[in-house]
Amino acid sequence: MQPIPDVRIHSMPRLSAQARARKIKLLLFDVDGVLTDGKLFFLPAPAGSGQIEFKGFHAHDGASISLARLGGIKTGLITKRSSETVALRARDLKLEYVFQGVSDKRTCFDQVLKQAGLKPEEAAFVGDDVIDLPAMRAGGLAIAVKNARAEVKKEAHYITPHAGGDGALRDAVEFILKAQSKWKRAVEDYIGERSAKNSC
Amino acid sequence: MQPIPDVRIHSMPRLSAQARARKIKLLLFDVDGVLTDGKLFFLPAPAGSGQIEFKGFHAHDGASISLARLGGIKTGLITKRSSETVALRARDLKLEYVFQGVSDKRTCFDQVLKQAGLKPEEAAFVGDDVIDLPAMRAGGLAIAVKNARAEVKKEAHYITPHAGGDGALRDAVEFILKAQSKWKRAVEDYIGERSAKNSC
Amino acid sequence: MQPIPDVRIHSMPRLSAQARARKIKLLLFDVDGVLTDGKLFFLPAPAGSGQIEFKGFHAHDGASISLARLGGIKTGLITKRSSETVALRARDLKLEYVFQGVSDKRTCFDQVLKQAGLKPEEAAFVGDDVIDLPAMRAGGLAIAVKNARAEVKKEAHYITPHAGGDGALRDAVEFILKAQSKWKRAVEDYIGERSAKNSC
Amino acid sequence: MQPIPDVRIHSMPRLSAQARARKIKLLLFDVDGVLTDGKLFFLPAPAGSGQIEFKGFHAHDGASISLARLGGIKTGLITKRSSETVALRARDLKLEYVFQGVSDKRTCFDQVLKQAGLKPEEAAFVGDDVIDLPAMRAGGLAIAVKNARAEVKKEAHYITPHAGGDGALRDAVEFILKAQSKWKRAVEDYIGERSAKNSC
Repeated sequence: MQPIPDVRIHSMPRLSAQARARKIKLLLFDVDGVLTDGKLFFLPAPAGSGQIEFKGFHAHDGASISLARLGGIKTGLITKRSSETVALRARDLKLEYVFQGVSDKRTCFDQVLKQAGLKPEEAAFVGDDVIDLPAMRAGGLAIAVKNARAEVKKEAHYITPHAGGDGALRDAVEFILKAQSKWKRAVEDYIGERSAKNSC
Repeated sequence: MQPIPDVRIHSMPRLSAQARARKIKLLLFDVDGVLTDGKLFFLPAPAGSGQIEFKGFHAHDGASISLARLGGIKTGLITKRSSETVALRARDLKLEYVFQGVSDKRTCFDQVLKQAGLKPEEAAFVGDDVIDLPAMRAGGLAIAVKNARAEVKKEAHYITPHAGGDGALRDAVEFILKAQSKWKRAVEDYIGERSAKNSC
Repeated sequence: MQPIPDVRIHSMPRLSAQARARKIKLLLFDVDGVLTDGKLFFLPAPAGSGQIEFKGFHAHDGASISLARLGGIKTGLITKRSSETVALRARDLKLEYVFQGVSDKRTCFDQVLKQAGLKPEEAAFVGDDVIDLPAMRAGGLAIAVKNARAEVKKEAHYITPHAGGDGALRDAVEFILKAQSKWKRAVEDYIGERSAKNSC
Repeated sequence: MQPIPDVRIHSMPRLSAQARARKIKLLLFDVDGVLTDGKLFFLPAPAGSGQIEFKGFHAHDGASISLARLGGIKTGLITKRSSETVALRARDLKLEYVFQGVSDKRTCFDQVLKQAGLKPEEAAFVGDDVIDLPAMRAGGLAIAVKNARAEVKKEAHYITPHAGGDGALRDAVEFILKAQSKWKRAVEDYIGERSAKNSC
């Protein structure tokens, strides 16, 4: 949407999602419903005390973390729940930032920005529920997954074509790197980097 | 549907689902097919005796229990099956009422009402199968999930847009709190309450 | 399809699926893809030898076994795979016949019929893959699930509206009991039987 | 697509997917997103060190490995991840080639070809993500699953009607054997072979 020039000429123009994506250097995201389809499974712990929580992550999202890295984008998760399964997946993905047990995602988002030495417009947040809205509003690019609740989608600059747990994060990374014209190169580097490694 | 005034003037008017929702102070629900997609997984127990049952719950439903609480609605589950995984999830959600192993949901529903000091029209039940019908008929608002069997949907005042295990309970809570004009405030309180807690 | 009377007047008329369903006294079915969505999960066994297999069953199918019993239909499973998880579910459902590790489903189907003292037209088989075809062809009513491979659907008298693991067996039971005008009574008995049991 | 004869008469004609399939003697495939829906589940290992990974395989794909064998097609998997659950499934399926932990799928693909004494046009690869493209390009038939990322589908000669983890590999085997006019015979042999085995 173009601002009307003669009226809003001195004001900040409303940016397109692509224009916003061009500035992104850090991609932060929620876990349940974003990195997963929102489903939570519980098993009684073998010792009889407490519980084992698990959920399903997607291989396409895993590849997207490597692609983001090759494209110069840092990544991290901020989630309210706290589980060993997320810690395992985060380690598997080699995420730069991992914050579990966080209720106030906005303050955490700001702290990560400060730590990374970035401006708000250089960070994006991907969410699916109302608890993600403060963090989504705080950065330069608000991304909602396909399966986000309606009021979360309403505030997003970009809605992923795939649902959480089915490649939504991959969509987000692809959208940002394409806006920055870094996608093709990242894919080539990703494939090439692989071939430098081991064969069977 | 409006009753014809001159004919049914002394009779109880047929209420809209919204009018029914406005009176609700207690939301009770089934588990399998409502809080989950109906899928049941079984693992042999490590000790070799019996089995471990598990199933998938949804993060959006979890948030809805907090939202219901902020909107002044009590919540609880009544289910025929009995498993540790449901006990763990119920504790996680801090439900007010948790009744497992219940075949006669209607009598249980009535007992909870009595215990809570509420009238039938102040309680709603969410179900997906014929065994839920007696409890659905006993309260003021009968809710069927999207994936309910056809004859259950036929008797419902409201059918959730999302399926069980994919946010159906969230739909139910949202429907009731919106009818009571408490939704926006509950969401704001929910987000605000979070920010009063911890950062990362 | 009506047979042409003057040509095939002495031959066996082709029966409708409903006419076939009216004679059924025994419902046999495959497991993977019929009682489940076909997905198989494997965990390494704790002892380090062998594996734990598990898969997802549906609550609506569970209720359908009770409904079949109330309608006078016996039930059982015949499956090629063999796992503890299926044994646990079969016990949970109180199935009359449980045969795992069976490659030749047709011969097994015939043996169950003999054991039950029934004629072929009194038994139905529900399948999803080509290995089920010989058993489907041997009985009076061949049922394919929605997610069956195309060539299996082609030979079925009835295709369930729900997929395996999402209530396909319930569809099969409902189809048979409705054809026999026993459905409503079975549902009423099922609900009533429940209320004679325990409350919360 | 037919090449224009007078212009491209001396050049290599572009082959149809069916023509390519007719030459296939070896079918290699990725795991995550192809043999599964891409979902990865993680459990903490009982000993407290490391993790247990699991994912869902499909029964229809299992049958397709037997059908491929009966049709004279060898099968194998090449995957970047490495897990016990895949080893268990591969053993269950009796795959000829099992290579886990492989980043450079192209080189591995070539090695398997050499080992099997086959020419590139006699091997097919089924993939879902960009890391599969080098192997897909190296053989005679590139197959993408329904749920493959868009740029992978773009380079495929054939796209499966079912998604990974829902029978995509079965589609691939069926496509190849039908192109070779071996499908019906393989199915009959598969059913017949079964009936030579055990009953219940």
